[in-house]
Amino acid sequence: MTVEIICVGTELLLGNIVNTNAAFLAEKCAALGLSSYFQVVVGDNRERLVQTIRTAMERADIVLLSGGLGPTGDDLTKEAAAEAFGRRLVEDETSRRQIEAYFAQRGITPTENNWKQALIPEGAKAIPNRNGTAPGIIMEENGKYAILLPGPPGELKPMFTDSVVPYLRTLEDEVIESVTVKVVDIGESRAETMVSDLMENQSNPTIAPYAKTGEVHFRITARAAGSKEAQELIAPVAEELKNRFGSHIYTMEEDVTLEKAVADLLAEKKWTIATAESCTGGLLAARLVNVPGVSEVFHAGFITYADEAKQNLIGVKEETLKQYGAVSSKTAEEMAVGAAKAAGADAAVSITGIAGPDGGTKDKPVGLVYIGCYVDGKVRVEEYHFTGSRLKIRESVVAAALVLLRNSIIAQ
Amino acid sequence: MTVEIICVGTELLLGNIVNTNAAFLAEKCAALGLSSYFQVVVGDNRERLVQTIRTAMERADIVLLSGGLGPTGDDLTKEAAAEAFGRRLVEDETSRRQIEAYFAQRGITPTENNWKQALIPEGAKAIPNRNGTAPGIIMEENGKYAILLPGPPGELKPMFTDSVVPYLRTLEDEVIESVTVKVVDIGESRAETMVSDLMENQSNPTIAPYAKTGEVHFRITARAAGSKEAQELIAPVAEELKNRFGSHIYTMEEDVTLEKAVADLLAEKKWTIATAESCTGGLLAARLVNVPGVSEVFHAGFITYADEAKQNLIGVKEETLKQYGAVSSKTAEEMAVGAAKAAGADAAVSITGIAGPDGGTKDKPVGLVYIGCYVDGKVRVEEYHFTGSRLKIRESVVAAALVLLRNSIIAQ
Repeated sequence: MTVEIICVGTELLLGNIVNTNAAFLAEKCAALGLSSYFQVVVGDNRERLVQTIRTAMERADIVLLSGGLGPTGDDLTKEAAAEAFGRRLVEDETSRRQIEAYFAQRGITPTENNWKQALIPEGAKAIPNRNGTAPGIIMEENGKYAILLPGPPGELKPMFTDSVVPYLRTLEDEVIESVTVKVVDIGESRAETMVSDLMENQSNPTIAPYAKTGEVHFRITARAAGSKEAQELIAPVAEELKNRFGSHIYTMEEDVTLEKAVADLLAEKKWTIATAESCTGGLLAARLVNVPGVSEVFHAGFITYADEAKQNLIGVKEETLKQYGAVSSKTAEEMAVGAAKAAGADAAVSITGIAGPDGGTKDKPVGLVYIGCYVDGKVRVEEYHFTGSRLKIRESVVAAALVLLRNSIIAQ
Repeated sequence: MTVEIICVGTELLLGNIVNTNAAFLAEKCAALGLSSYFQVVVGDNRERLVQTIRTAMERADIVLLSGGLGPTGDDLTKEAAAEAFGRRLVEDETSRRQIEAYFAQRGITPTENNWKQALIPEGAKAIPNRNGTAPGIIMEENGKYAILLPGPPGELKPMFTDSVVPYLRTLEDEVIESVTVKVVDIGESRAETMVSDLMENQSNPTIAPYAKTGEVHFRITARAAGSKEAQELIAPVAEELKNRFGSHIYTMEEDVTLEKAVADLLAEKKWTIATAESCTGGLLAARLVNVPGVSEVFHAGFITYADEAKQNLIGVKEETLKQYGAVSSKTAEEMAVGAAKAAGADAAVSITGIAGPDGGTKDKPVGLVYIGCYVDGKVRVEEYHFTGSRLKIRESVVAAALVLLRNSIIAQ
């Protein structure tokens, strides 16, 4: 089956916000095995909305709409969908009661506008919204489906994952399952070349590459009559990727991030980690703190942005800074050892470099970074050359630091 | 004039990447005073691309296309645009020479594919690409314009800003200018209500609100015969916003972020700042480090994720942690004072809270955060209640911390 994604909202046309809903929905649909050929963004205009929905229904089986389910005069998605399907709007009792409860719980009196949200196209099914007042809506006509979702990502994502994905699975006779193999420390081009024969020849399962900062993900997707059969198709492909990528694979679980994988490795070893950052300014520690429960392995971090801070907080020697400079292998080494000591941690990662746009010289250009890793009493420092904007360089450095840390732990 | 944005690439349809190009282009076009009613995403399929371009040309004056200008077989945008305009592809000599130079500079031998990038539709104008090999392309026919841009944001953004924006300005007789008024410490709804009369009645200039994390921006856009006249239209409106928002406005310059404004305030006072973060894990320091040159005011930061780190690194008293807990006003106060002392800084900001999803209790729920600010020998602590995901809460906290710091500095 094919799906078309329509995101409604003038704020998207004005570039006020980035369309994260489209990417979220598109990725979920791809994982469900649905093909998609178009995405459209349209404003809060009834006529254009109706036209856009009709065009989508001509060329796709499923139309997903996000946005425009609010209580204001600009919220027109339900009205437009009802018109495109030739139906009236009627009040859905469950939705009405849910809206009453939502406002009662917050001690707010709803306005007349808010009751608008309890209206749904006749014959449609309302999907409960646990994070807002607008119910989602599913409509079906002659094998065509329209699914209306609230615009705010905090409402759309849980509703889609909890209610719509199970519903979409029922539309297909087949089951679609995926496993994502996450690879680090191999460049995107080379990683794809290493499995290009598999990607070209596979039709079920398929293998799709996804480039991330410092990582490449390969999603293996299989369709079969049932879950067991789908997993049986996936398993040998996953095994072959394991053979080819070996320890470059840090997880095959969808929800495990690189920082989570690293935190888990540290927890296994019962090691605590400290961080000492200069140009990344806290982004490495912040990535570790993305992991709920990281407090088991991460207690303290330092941002030693100035030379004095490197000396005073984590014991980098004045002579080292004088002789080699803040951005040097020796400084990175002393930062790592010093941070572990100052924090009373078993291990530490240090970062010192030039993120740009200014600060580069002929000898030490923008993008030059040293990352140090102190693990199990041994220090290792690597030199890197990154390109891009100040922020892009910093993000690339953080990814490289997590990879170096992982490599250092598994090498023990 | 109206513009339609078409982003080309199967990776967008699969949700592999978020469509940041569309938001960037849309915001730039809005600032240029162009109206936009549709954005479309289409895959690397020639037939659908031609159809999409033709539809866009029927309903808009300017069609912006991003993506599909690379050297591979999947790159079809030029071919599709040429077909939609009824033209052949011919080699552009300047582009050919630029591609030769690009590869020579890197010591790489180009493949046959790479020469494809020197082809442009007959009669079109090539836009030089300083960050890649694919030239941009401008085509015109009977008052309709198609502008083709490379997909990678690092190539598209500079090309659009440097070459396309000036070109688009020449298409309109009028000049469009904008000033963005950035407001903090007033909620989005209230801020919009405070100027709703101005927004409703204005047609030239117009006032458009943009909600950001912890900020609201109001863009004042005027059209006139020349730049001087446009600025004369904007000035009284900007003045009125100043009257209404007062010191809640932190800047009226497009490129000045809140962190830059705060860094500038500190530099004016010749004060240095230290940070002490718990649940935000480094995100506050990282935002300060976004500012090139912040080393003048920011030297050191601490991530005191564990109670011991709060004690050992920045001197929070054991009795305080025992009696009030890590997430308390007293702890935030001692963190701020202690961080300034440990870093030898004039001022400090501290953050302690519960970012979730776990860790909340009845008395101290997820989202409870205390932010402390030590400025000019005085400490101030504020209590906050945030909602959302772990990451969203942490981002909101960082914005609030910058606002509190700003307020504390300007109150001196």
